[in-house]
Amino acid sequence: MFTLIKQEGAARRGRLVTPHGVIETPVFMNVGTAAAIKGAVSSYDLKELKCQVELCNTYHLHLRPGEELVRSQGGLRAFMGWDGPVLTDSGGFQVFSLAALRQINEQGVRFNSHIDGRPIRMSPEDSMRIQSRLGSTIAMAFDECVENPAPREYVQASCARTQRWALRCRAEMDRLNAEGLGPNPQQMLFGINQGGTYDDIRIEHMKQLADLPFEGIAIGGLAVGEPTEVMYRIIESVEPYAPKDKPRYLMGVGTPVNILEAVARGIDFFDCVMPARNARHGHLFTSTGIINLNNARYAKDPAPIDPACQCPTCRHHSRAYLRHLLKAGEMLAMRLLVMHNLWFYNTLMEQIRDALDSGCFYAFYTEQREKLGKRR
Amino acid sequence: MFTLIKQEGAARRGRLVTPHGVIETPVFMNVGTAAAIKGAVSSYDLKELKCQVELCNTYHLHLRPGEELVRSQGGLRAFMGWDGPVLTDSGGFQVFSLAALRQINEQGVRFNSHIDGRPIRMSPEDSMRIQSRLGSTIAMAFDECVENPAPREYVQASCARTQRWALRCRAEMDRLNAEGLGPNPQQMLFGINQGGTYDDIRIEHMKQLADLPFEGIAIGGLAVGEPTEVMYRIIESVEPYAPKDKPRYLMGVGTPVNILEAVARGIDFFDCVMPARNARHGHLFTSTGIINLNNARYAKDPAPIDPACQCPTCRHHSRAYLRHLLKAGEMLAMRLLVMHNLWFYNTLMEQIRDALDSGCFYAFYTEQREKLGKRR
Repeated sequence: MFTLIKQEGAARRGRLVTPHGVIETPVFMNVGTAAAIKGAVSSYDLKELKCQVELCNTYHLHLRPGEELVRSQGGLRAFMGWDGPVLTDSGGFQVFSLAALRQINEQGVRFNSHIDGRPIRMSPEDSMRIQSRLGSTIAMAFDECVENPAPREYVQASCARTQRWALRCRAEMDRLNAEGLGPNPQQMLFGINQGGTYDDIRIEHMKQLADLPFEGIAIGGLAVGEPTEVMYRIIESVEPYAPKDKPRYLMGVGTPVNILEAVARGIDFFDCVMPARNARHGHLFTSTGIINLNNARYAKDPAPIDPACQCPTCRHHSRAYLRHLLKAGEMLAMRLLVMHNLWFYNTLMEQIRDALDSGCFYAFYTEQREKLGKRR
Repeated sequence: MFTLIKQEGAARRGRLVTPHGVIETPVFMNVGTAAAIKGAVSSYDLKELKCQVELCNTYHLHLRPGEELVRSQGGLRAFMGWDGPVLTDSGGFQVFSLAALRQINEQGVRFNSHIDGRPIRMSPEDSMRIQSRLGSTIAMAFDECVENPAPREYVQASCARTQRWALRCRAEMDRLNAEGLGPNPQQMLFGINQGGTYDDIRIEHMKQLADLPFEGIAIGGLAVGEPTEVMYRIIESVEPYAPKDKPRYLMGVGTPVNILEAVARGIDFFDCVMPARNARHGHLFTSTGIINLNNARYAKDPAPIDPACQCPTCRHHSRAYLRHLLKAGEMLAMRLLVMHNLWFYNTLMEQIRDALDSGCFYAFYTEQREKLGKRR
């Protein structure tokens, strides 16, 4: 299913064939939390934005509208009107970051809904059943995401439990796929590496995961409090122990520079709310650095956000107009700015793939890591 | 400039040639108050929605971002990225409906901004200068819009002042066009008929307006408190006195049935915030009546809003998905629902024009007036 096409150092150019289409990697997945991209970007806009994979959040969809409703509509893809691949997370991260009053034990997690406070239980098996009904292309194992820094003893115990949960997830997903009642009975499952910022725990866990029949391996529990350099170090530590023939997914990361650095360290899949969230605040990525459209200097600026950009927003609209929409609180500002930032991320990934294809990733990486981080 | 192509009873099929494109009438103008359609609908979406004319509000644009900024960007059309005709209202209606602490005298109006409370003056000449800088295709004369019902004496005096203002508007617009400093030195100007619900005042005023060199005549001060039947009666009263060779614009009206009835009474131009506002609350127009998408019966409904509709929303999405987006407060709901309702209005106008073209407007009118008002 996953083919490694080319390598340059640790960086990998790959291709994952799924029942819902081919995913060219490295890839950035666009986040549509509750079956919708924030900022009024529709599924058919996503095609124009060169999105390959849409990511939806199991926690949000379980609470509203509920996986039974989504299943009754033919699964997430039919429900959203998106015909490409979809990845669902396990709900674990949101339980730990959004829900109130949570309790965790071997069985699973109890928590209160952040919408109406009602008590909810979620076990690894529950997460698999929900994701099966959602019918995503790729499901994620249910794990505990521990914030960094955390005490070694806690991380060790949590990681061991996450590994026991991973086995339960694999077994339940196999059962569900065999049962064939969900919208996608060929659902793939990725395992998740944990271990906080402890290299030895991370490596030990990666070795255990590598032996299991997952279709891909994610690195979770990073970009949750630790310095960026620690994140890069952890990736470098565990990468040699990740299976070469499976895609690797760095969850919830990150800035364009983070992504470039992680690709250079052997990562294939990414997702992050940053491009959409930053856009909604007027913070825009360009080929020459980051601009803040709230700045008064753009009030009469007839140039597009990025003169080098071919996104629908830059093709049609000026900074002056977009800044006016932002200041006036017009919903249209959100949409046009989110579209620009998503295009920027998806185009960056395309450029990374092109550079890998033509064997000049290292030159691209060296040039871009300087540019991408700049604030203008 | 305005050609009457066909007539059926009082109903008219016409064509207004403007420097910014041809407008086929009867036409519904889509409201983009602050240079943006509410609900994140962009100028290039409008093309897909078969919009012919975008309407912007002078009051809002004067307050933010200011007409000087818009002028510096080449006028409203360049600013918004909309290459079709644009109509600006005069600011009068908003001064009377939105602004606080207003005082009116012969010179003009003083009021406080609804955004930051700062005191602002607006005279007929000011309104023309602002609209000239905005560079719309069609400007509107500055009038007083009196709510219905109002005492006869007040309406009589206000209407006489509105007529004196109309003369000042015409003179100032002629001067501005001759000066040629605005983005559109061929700006058209429509006069506005007032007179509340008093047929004789309305008729007397229409006779006066008919003698003036306006490029079109609007009927203002309706749909502001009076029963619908009174609105229809007033249109019937003044219509015989409106110039046959100029377009007639019924301001701020209305429901689909209102529009159909007004076309039957000789009206050519319409605008209303209703399709967008109703959409944002889940109230949707369909070929078989109005539906409320909040209704639980649509929770699992895989059908589009209107199976007979070809709008981008109905082509891609189900009621179940749209209702989920609405319930989850997703911005995308606003956009997809507004697009549907605008398409519905623009398509209704297209059907009206087709019926007039083929000489079967009366049959269309008889059939549709029943259907359009229904709630399902």
